[in-house]
Amino acid sequence: MRVLASDIAEHIGAEISLSGWVHRIRDMGKITFVVLRDRSGMAQLVYQTDSMPQLGLEYVIGVSGRVVANERSPGGAELEASVTDVLSVADQELPFPINRDPSECSLEMILDNRILSLRNPKLRSIFELQSSILGCVSNYMHAQEFCEMKTSKLIGSGTEGGTGLFTVDYFDRKVFLAQSPQFYKQAMISTGLERVFEISHAYRAEKHDTPRHLNEYVSFDVEMAFIESELDLIKFEQGVLADLFERLSAGESEILALWGASVPDPESVGRIPVLSCDEVKKIVSAASGHPVYDITPEAERLICDWAEGQYGISACFINDWPRRSRPFYTHPKSNRTTMSFDLIFRGLEITTGGRRINDYRMLKEALPRFGLTEAGLGEYPKIFKYGCPPHGGFAIGIERLTQKILGLTNVKEASPFPRDRKRVSP
Amino acid sequence: MRVLASDIAEHIGAEISLSGWVHRIRDMGKITFVVLRDRSGMAQLVYQTDSMPQLGLEYVIGVSGRVVANERSPGGAELEASVTDVLSVADQELPFPINRDPSECSLEMILDNRILSLRNPKLRSIFELQSSILGCVSNYMHAQEFCEMKTSKLIGSGTEGGTGLFTVDYFDRKVFLAQSPQFYKQAMISTGLERVFEISHAYRAEKHDTPRHLNEYVSFDVEMAFIESELDLIKFEQGVLADLFERLSAGESEILALWGASVPDPESVGRIPVLSCDEVKKIVSAASGHPVYDITPEAERLICDWAEGQYGISACFINDWPRRSRPFYTHPKSNRTTMSFDLIFRGLEITTGGRRINDYRMLKEALPRFGLTEAGLGEYPKIFKYGCPPHGGFAIGIERLTQKILGLTNVKEASPFPRDRKRVSP
Repeated sequence: MRVLASDIAEHIGAEISLSGWVHRIRDMGKITFVVLRDRSGMAQLVYQTDSMPQLGLEYVIGVSGRVVANERSPGGAELEASVTDVLSVADQELPFPINRDPSECSLEMILDNRILSLRNPKLRSIFELQSSILGCVSNYMHAQEFCEMKTSKLIGSGTEGGTGLFTVDYFDRKVFLAQSPQFYKQAMISTGLERVFEISHAYRAEKHDTPRHLNEYVSFDVEMAFIESELDLIKFEQGVLADLFERLSAGESEILALWGASVPDPESVGRIPVLSCDEVKKIVSAASGHPVYDITPEAERLICDWAEGQYGISACFINDWPRRSRPFYTHPKSNRTTMSFDLIFRGLEITTGGRRINDYRMLKEALPRFGLTEAGLGEYPKIFKYGCPPHGGFAIGIERLTQKILGLTNVKEASPFPRDRKRVSP
Repeated sequence: MRVLASDIAEHIGAEISLSGWVHRIRDMGKITFVVLRDRSGMAQLVYQTDSMPQLGLEYVIGVSGRVVANERSPGGAELEASVTDVLSVADQELPFPINRDPSECSLEMILDNRILSLRNPKLRSIFELQSSILGCVSNYMHAQEFCEMKTSKLIGSGTEGGTGLFTVDYFDRKVFLAQSPQFYKQAMISTGLERVFEISHAYRAEKHDTPRHLNEYVSFDVEMAFIESELDLIKFEQGVLADLFERLSAGESEILALWGASVPDPESVGRIPVLSCDEVKKIVSAASGHPVYDITPEAERLICDWAEGQYGISACFINDWPRRSRPFYTHPKSNRTTMSFDLIFRGLEITTGGRRINDYRMLKEALPRFGLTEAGLGEYPKIFKYGCPPHGGFAIGIERLTQKILGLTNVKEASPFPRDRKRVSP
């Protein structure tokens, strides 16, 4: 029966089997230590050097033997290897130093060798944490009676205009890859589902290559009916994040420690300040000593530093964005401002959301302001023409959230196979 | 405080508020009955006709009043409406009969009017059930220590050849929409994650338009290391399905009843026969009275009928597929056959899977048989060159599973916004 590497100390004195990858080999003369890596962690194997099978780094083996206590071994035990079965040999010209500290490697090198660099336990752990994020938020949403949906990513026309869309050859016509499920999540709440969420890929054909952007990312989208303003959405998102942080703190402490990271105290999420765009500009102007006219990346960092000092959490909800800076479907708050918000977390925008226009006449009146026509929106206006409740929603970028939880420098590190202008492989 | 329609009988005698859509209006002379629909179900409102506000079908309203018992009302109670707030008016030229039995409508009519037809509670319930399926399988996989991953759908080259791929204009080059995460799930298990799953969209540029096919579908993909043969995968899939059927049976009995459907007894999943291709052909030949040379859709139906009679469940695992009918990466069992399987459920293939070749030399030797070269496979061979454990996996089509659980005629009914050769909207 196979035992996982992290569990061998529970089997001292017993004959067991381990399976995994050869992570490190140290020839000590009469004996040789082999560190075996599996999904749970590492275990040390002890071989008599003269009777040892031919092994190399990254060989996949099954190995049987007796577990003995050894306080100098990782986990306090090691396996005296008796029978070794080589399941797969590995070319020894490894193009990536799998068993070394990845901070020695550039991001280019890590991504160019992605199939091997993901074998590094620290780099791999990013996606173990991301898996927990996906599982936690999905669980939370189902428990809150949200309906999980999977909507089409192939759209006949762009709701938010044609810029930034990738084109797909679809039989004898052109379609686009969806930038967000905005249209569909509004359609679904209007069907009477009232509360929907989706975790799927979204696409942005933006040419800039920054540490904040991916051309393909995973978007956690939420939409809910019968709200009054963006403040209902902010409150809901606080619930999502508090639950997530609580679960990660309890369940993923090892990965957090590996990265020297921690999640905010769940209780502190309720203290995240909600400030209008104008208030943020004032605070950031004062903090930076020069007037700030826009919520720039620098302003996002400064307001989080300020919130950390004032409220003990490096995050800020910014609401009351100007109409001109938000999409046409955003519900106005005044003639100039909207019921919209962003969440800035540890200096980076991880959420955009807001109440949407649900009144058909209000929507029609808003369109000319944005240079749009009802006909140009395809089926979208039908959502509102036949009765649609007050509603709104938001989206969280899963890679950005992962990045900011672990303190990664570049969002690409948080995508297993990131896509940018130049990178489409592996 | 808002009460959901399905809960009003718990509030008899109390003043409450409901919110939802006007589903039906019946003017009885002095009084008028209005059926209100919300995400939980329906509730009856009673108005004095002469003091009733102007309402129409699909208006969205908030309504307050006193709950009174009435055994002729749905749920045994109704609301004597006092204050009504119209939240959204609806055009009364409804292009789809939302409050009628959808079996009166053609599939074309349902899909052409998707934004409205999803308001029909029976049609909407398909996606409430699908949401439960998504939540249940995700929960199960996380509990089984599988890592949930989200891999790129934009691929530089097609692992399984260039046919059946949609082309995307990606900046100054062409890429393809992934047909499956096959490449990535094998890469991820080889990193040491060992057990991965993904629930994401997959794309097939196939021209045929049948009740079994979608050009964009949701694929639940599983891959696991350290297996011996496809029998390990079959056993694992039985665990997934038994858990799913148990949860749906307990949690979604209302939707199942609405469709006159039921899930198989979870205990019966362990009895699903595992038959080789050759055995299935023999059984189907005998059952149909004519020789059967291929596992055609008719054969899939007949073998399920046979299994229903023999084992009490309309399902069959078919293994030992010929090498020529499976992809190049399928692990051989003999010179002629492979360690592969399909699951046929209620007459339809809902799963394809198998053990994969994990040995680099075996892979290289297999390629010429399929007219492939190592160079033509891009980064794929790197997964095996540097040590890869024995592994395999399978995929379940979420729409097909939904279809077969509810007994829907066409798989398009189980996609909220299906894509076929002609349909890219809404």
